[in-house]
Amino acid sequence: MLIRQIIVTLVIALGVLCDTADNKIEECILPEDLVNEIASYAPTVQKIINTSINGSFKGITYNELAYFVDKFGNRISGSQNLEDAIDFMIKKSSASGLDNVHGEEVKVPHWIRGSESATMIEPRTKSLTLLGLGNSVGTPPEGILAEVLVVKSFDELNAKAGQAKGKIVVYNQDYISYGQSVAYRGQGATAAAKVGGVASLIRSITPFSLNTPHTGMQSYKDNVTKIPTACITVEDAHLLQRLQDEGYTIKILLKMEAQTLPDVTSRNVVAEIEGSKQPEKVVIVSGHIDSWDVGDGAMDDGGGVFISWGALALLKNLNLKPKRTIRSVFWTAEEFGYVGAFGYAQQHQNETDNFVFLMESDIGTFNPVGLEYAGGATGYCIVQEIAKLLAPINATKTRQSPSVGSDIEIWTGNGIPGASLDTENDKYFWYHHTPADTLDAEDSVSLDKNTALWASVAYVIADLSIDFPRDSLKTKH
Amino acid sequence: MLIRQIIVTLVIALGVLCDTADNKIEECILPEDLVNEIASYAPTVQKIINTSINGSFKGITYNELAYFVDKFGNRISGSQNLEDAIDFMIKKSSASGLDNVHGEEVKVPHWIRGSESATMIEPRTKSLTLLGLGNSVGTPPEGILAEVLVVKSFDELNAKAGQAKGKIVVYNQDYISYGQSVAYRGQGATAAAKVGGVASLIRSITPFSLNTPHTGMQSYKDNVTKIPTACITVEDAHLLQRLQDEGYTIKILLKMEAQTLPDVTSRNVVAEIEGSKQPEKVVIVSGHIDSWDVGDGAMDDGGGVFISWGALALLKNLNLKPKRTIRSVFWTAEEFGYVGAFGYAQQHQNETDNFVFLMESDIGTFNPVGLEYAGGATGYCIVQEIAKLLAPINATKTRQSPSVGSDIEIWTGNGIPGASLDTENDKYFWYHHTPADTLDAEDSVSLDKNTALWASVAYVIADLSIDFPRDSLKTKH
Repeated sequence: MLIRQIIVTLVIALGVLCDTADNKIEECILPEDLVNEIASYAPTVQKIINTSINGSFKGITYNELAYFVDKFGNRISGSQNLEDAIDFMIKKSSASGLDNVHGEEVKVPHWIRGSESATMIEPRTKSLTLLGLGNSVGTPPEGILAEVLVVKSFDELNAKAGQAKGKIVVYNQDYISYGQSVAYRGQGATAAAKVGGVASLIRSITPFSLNTPHTGMQSYKDNVTKIPTACITVEDAHLLQRLQDEGYTIKILLKMEAQTLPDVTSRNVVAEIEGSKQPEKVVIVSGHIDSWDVGDGAMDDGGGVFISWGALALLKNLNLKPKRTIRSVFWTAEEFGYVGAFGYAQQHQNETDNFVFLMESDIGTFNPVGLEYAGGATGYCIVQEIAKLLAPINATKTRQSPSVGSDIEIWTGNGIPGASLDTENDKYFWYHHTPADTLDAEDSVSLDKNTALWASVAYVIADLSIDFPRDSLKTKH
Repeated sequence: MLIRQIIVTLVIALGVLCDTADNKIEECILPEDLVNEIASYAPTVQKIINTSINGSFKGITYNELAYFVDKFGNRISGSQNLEDAIDFMIKKSSASGLDNVHGEEVKVPHWIRGSESATMIEPRTKSLTLLGLGNSVGTPPEGILAEVLVVKSFDELNAKAGQAKGKIVVYNQDYISYGQSVAYRGQGATAAAKVGGVASLIRSITPFSLNTPHTGMQSYKDNVTKIPTACITVEDAHLLQRLQDEGYTIKILLKMEAQTLPDVTSRNVVAEIEGSKQPEKVVIVSGHIDSWDVGDGAMDDGGGVFISWGALALLKNLNLKPKRTIRSVFWTAEEFGYVGAFGYAQQHQNETDNFVFLMESDIGTFNPVGLEYAGGATGYCIVQEIAKLLAPINATKTRQSPSVGSDIEIWTGNGIPGASLDTENDKYFWYHHTPADTLDAEDSVSLDKNTALWASVAYVIADLSIDFPRDSLKTKH
């Protein structure tokens, strides 16, 4: 214990030297012993990879994911589908021989969509493809029939605030990136209500569309009227913009039955491979088990759940028991704002010091390229060494972010190191939160590689002679 | 007249020499005078291109197409929308100063979709995205609730004929190419009815899907029960296949209000630039003005109509009057089997000898690469020389097919030479017959280039000293 602490301190001290002013690592100076120790896992990692890619686990992640999404379909927070899927994953994890399998209760939102439609009435009749946004209120049963004001930005809305009263505000914001454009989904209704809008529609947040609607969360601000809000397709947003620019008066009849019912009890699913030496120290691998209520939630985040389940099942199958515990968590109600993860953080706050490293896959399980890392400079040096072990699947790339993951951001955004799966996910936002989030977005070979990567990284970090260092980037700037 | 005939004969004789056994042209031996004559059009073509790409016509094709699709939306055969759009194009062609603008009446089908839905009832409830196929009958008002039989091919259906009785047959055929896979759309219902199926669903004919349904024509065979038929998405066809393979019993409730009303009168729209020397000889440029009843028909075939209108309007604007007549035709009811074109062929059968060359754009107006040609070997040599003039827009490629076009195949499939617009259309079938066929599939710069290409090729062929030769490939094999 003492020797390990000394090594850790030394490692951290050396690690600081590696961190340049602009936060780019130019050189890693890790103790040679540690580098050699990490390299010594190569045969084990090769065995994990072989088993997943060409051995007894080949195709299992995809096939199990397929069986799961075919059986349950989508799994929105509050739904019986989600709870059935949670029961299934608890049984499946037990059947895979994992340790301490159980659900941990947490209250989650219960928003239901109901039927919904948007029909352009003027200047001509056209049925618009739409999806209500999460948490939206509904319209009166007869709907809301109103003139439309199309704006490209919040700035334009504010400049035209005088024209918005009584109108349906349509945001035709450009797609810059998901992170930048999603503000229109999250806050569009509130901004429209503030200037007197009676409903708001956003252009779906995506770089590519085949008339594809993309739902997602939105939040009302306190003390602002809650108005119904939905997404329309990129194509229809463009159409409405052009019609407005051509001088037409546009009217839309919006009908939404959406409503929020009382919270219900859901569960985060937990399963472990208990550590042989320090079982109280935990490496977490995770994905979220809930999805939106469209498509089948195969990509978001069935893939993340099944490579996390697959990683533990594979290690168990190979009888690889690391020094520390590897815990898989399938978070519930991620889509409504990390609800399951926040509950977990609260319930496990006394355990936080033992969270050695957190991993989440929630940005696609396409062909892997490596890891996106959040944490300190020395840790990054270690991650780079571990990534070298992934050369057999050509997934050795690493990059850094201030925080990673969705659910695990609660921890990685607060100085606890972790990593996201990094894949060739340039089409992720084509499918995200749409009816096209089905098994067709997934690929068996990629899933095998991701399961291998997930198992390898978790195993090495859980088994190292030292705790993964917590020298936070945040403390150095 | 006589001198021209001699030249034509000579050209044809020389052309034959160019045609090798495997139908590939190795060398073109055209009279030097003719080659020089074609090359002499370079300044004129450059002027057409400059005007369309950077001059007074820049952006006009796109803007006019946008105005058109925004105003009318989709335009299915039999609809008032289509007739309003036809009226509009007649007025627009007149306003552009074109000659002999008029509509020519033809009887067209009047099929209407009505509301429609397909809900998987077992093994779990899922609403399937579908679009009824053209000419389909409807279901009884209460729908058809039946077990499903999924097959990958007609062969598999026949092998399992004993299991099909009373079932909804789902075709999960692979996408090989549009031409090869479309047989399942065209004949799937009849094949299913023959073995006792009560309805049929096909996997949409596309190489890529975001849960995108692709409608289209289908035909019932005489003396076979007409059963309701629709397309579902690639994703849902895959789902049904997997569920069947996993051993589930699948039941679907199909409701379709589709019905065929009596034929109505529509019109092919005709406009000309009358030839200065031989006005009776005609070069046709064309696209079809009808569309399916989903999306806005911007790509299929608004683009084809508007580059054909644009080509004539541009030539008129430049005061370029060729020796022969250039005629634009906007065919009606193409989607129901070239109905407008067949009517036109019958009404103009006495004029066929004067059809010098026919052009149609109905496979997308993406960035142009050149021309796809049907006709004789000498003609191909001439087309290759003309294509060289298109170097300023990098659209000099040519290739041959036994017939080209959709509507004009009536003629090009029967020895009358013609060409299709050839573009970078690898995504054409992503949008084809879907709600995503909107203006977003079109691009202003590409449309400018296509208008220039269309105008240039039509003008040169209409103005050459010789009639375009009719040495048909068909007569040589």
